Parts: sequence; C-alpha cells; structure tokens
Amino acid sequence: MPTIIIEGPPVKDLERKRRLAKEVTEAVAKFYGYPIEKIHGLIKENPPENVIVAGELLIDRRQRAAGKST
Amino acid sequence: MPTIIIEGPPVKDLERKRRLAKEVTEAVAKFYGYPIEKIHGLIKENPPENVIVAGELLIDRRQRAAGKST
Amino acid sequence: MPTIIIEGPPVKDLERKRRLAKEVTEAVAKFYGYPIEKIHGLIKENPPENVIVAGELLIDRRQRAAGKST
Amino acid sequence: MPTIIIEGPPVKDLERKRRLAKEVTEAVAKFYGYPIEKIHGLIKENPPENVIVAGELLIDRRQRAAGKST
Amino acid sequence: MPTIIIEGPPVKDLERKRRLAKEVTEAVAKFYGYPIEKIHGLIKENPPENVIVAGELLIDRRQRAAGKST
Amino acid sequence: MPTIIIEGPPVKDLERKRRLAKEVTEAVAKFYGYPIEKIHGLIKENPPENVIVAGELLIDRRQRAAGKST
Repeated sequence: MPTIIIEGPPVKDLERKRRLAKEVTEAVAKFYGYPIEKIHGLIKENPPENVIVAGELLIDRRQRAAGKST
Repeated sequence: MPTIIIEGPPVKDLERKRRLAKEVTEAVAKFYGYPIEKIHGLIKENPPENVIVAGELLIDRRQRAAGKST
Repeated sequence: MPTIIIEGPPVKDLERKRRLAKEVTEAVAKFYGYPIEKIHGLIKENPPENVIVAGELLIDRRQRAAGKST
Repeated sequence: MPTIIIEGPPVKDLERKRRLAKEVTEAVAKFYGYPIEKIHGLIKENPPENVIVAGELLIDRRQRAAGKST
Repeated sequence: MPTIIIEGPPVKDLERKRRLAKEVTEAVAKFYGYPIEKIHGLIKENPPENVIVAGELLIDRRQRAAGKST
Repeated sequence: MPTIIIEGPPVKDLERKRRLAKEVTEAVAKFYGYPIEKIHGLIKENPPENVIVAGELLIDRRQRAAGKST
C-alpha cells in the first residue's frame, strides 16, 4: 500500500509517464520489499502560475529567463 | 480543524460527492470527538494518465482490461 | 487505489482508529464503486505545537482555553 | 528544500498569487533560517464541488448563502 | 523544484533509504528533463496503527497474518 | 477552510513557530480575502534521514558539509 506522489510542472508525453511509473514503482517496491502490485502513485501536474520558486511564480521566472536569452 | 483528503480517479456525479462529504465528515468528527463544523476535506480528481498502479498508468491498465473483455 | 489521508491532532485509542478505518473506507468504496480491497488510507497525527488555527498554534489556543475555564 | 502547499478554492488574480508567493516564502525562509532560494511551494486550486466544509460541498453552501442573501 | 513524497510503513535501514533517494531522484529528473539538483523528496514513515488497508488497520492485518502462519 | 502545509526539517523553537503561524496565516487570509479564522495549517517536521535533496539523504549531505568545514 505505499504511495508515491510526484509534484511538478505539467508533462504531456505519455511515454515518459509510462517510464516514470515503471521506474519509481520498482525503486519503491525494492525499498519496502513488497511486490509491485502493492505500490501505487500519483503524478500531479501544477500549472506554472501555481508553482512558487524562491518567492516568485514559476511563470514569471520562465518569462524572465526567456527574455534574457533573446 | 482536521482535514480529510481523498485521492482517486474523477467522479462527476454531484449527488455521490454530497453523500461522500456527509459520511466521511461524520466518521471523522466522531473519531476526534469534534463537531462537524470543525471538519473539512478535499476530493482530488486525478486523470487516469496520472495514476500509477503496479508500475503502470491507470489509462493503460483500463485499455488492456477493455481489450480483454471483448 | 484511492487513498484517504486524515490530518488532525493525535488520537491514541486503537478502537476508535479501527472504527474510523472501517467507516471512511466504506464511504469511499461506495463513492468510487470499488471493492474495499482497493481503498487505503493514512491517519496523520500532528502534535499541537505543529497545528495552526486562525494564526495561532493549537498548543497556545488550548492553554488559553484551559486558563479561561478555571 | 522546505515546501509550502496551499490548498483552497481557485483564485485567478496573478498579482495576488505573486504577493502570496513572496510573503509565504519570506515567512518560511525566516522560520528555517534558510535563503529564499531554498524554499518553494505549490498553490492548489480546488473547484467548489470538491471542497468539503462541515459535511457539505462548498458549491452547495455557497448556493444556499446566495439564496439567503436575496 | 519537483517534489517526490513516499508514504509507507517505517523502514529503518539507512542504506536502503540512500538507494531509494538516488533511484527515485534519477527517475524523476529524467522525467522532467531537469538536473538532479532540482529534485527533492520526503520519505514519510507511518506507524502500522495509522495505516488503513481494505477497511482495517495494518497493525490488525499483520497480527492476523502472523496468527495464521503459526 | 484553506489549509497551509509546510514541509521541512525539524525546528524546535516554539517562538519561531508562533511567528510562522501568524505570518503565513495573514498572507493566506489576504490572498483568499477570508478572515484568519477560516485558515489553518500544519507544520510537518521531517527527520534528516527522510529528506531527499539532489538524490541524497539530507543527513549525508550535512555530514559531508560538516566534514568539509573542518
């Protein structure tokens, strides 16, 4: 019954989600000594206006970074 | 001030949400010996491509199960 | 695979935990239309110096309430 | 690496999110004695049909309150 | 800034925690395309009287399982 | 009913917890336009062997940092 929660910005690629699901489940199953059937998890996709980094919204940090690189 | 968080796949039926709200609140209020006014909660709806079960995405498990049943 | 998380102050009575486990699981299983085997949960016990209510620590609110009642 | 999670109903005003990000980060950085670069957070927006207050859905409480005020 | 939260029963072996930390971080860093410096996580150890499985406390399930195996 | 959850390493100073409680509650109440009575929160203290930073346990990072500074 262990649960893995992964919080981060959105990722739309289903293939990468599949690989993540497999890899974190195997790591966590090994950690607890449980079969993978007992492990589950949630991928939480947070829009960049709802992610706070160093006192700023991620949406603002990205915009500033994009501005700098031009 | 106790908080109940329920994580699962989406459920759209408002009537079932009402019943859930009532029942889990009553169970939790009784547990703490608090009036129901002190209890609140959140229902979290996770899309099936973001739910991991036994190392797989729920969206893939459902598709496979659907395939089998035909 | 739905998960119930209950956050609140500590409760030590095992019998009350058993009843809570049974009642919230049944409510959540009914909500999702899943067998109870698919539901699990966590009871999180938070010490009163770590619970914030209306801008204060619960430990301070309780002490003040105790002072008033004498 | 401390993380702040704020759960509540949706707020769309980006300016208010910016101010929240700044203020909670400064409070938490001071608390841990860490530079603000080490602090991050998530604002979680919960639709009112998924928020439970005193055994009811927030969407129903609001509707009732709106009805009363007419 | 992605965060991994792992909820499960207690595991005391530090070496296993080290391996878990390394493996889940690498999987999550690859998933987001971020350097591992941006990833952090929390291992949450839940006592068996606070874990609910299929409507029962884990502490009771284990005791019953132990009884059966004698 | 908004909830603030703060995850980080342990801090034992009650006076700092009081200040944190007051400051984050005021910031969050202002954000939602709610009175502070509606806001609550939890401070979660995570032992350094359960905190993962950049693929390592915090307990190991600290030990290495302490070693370097001698």
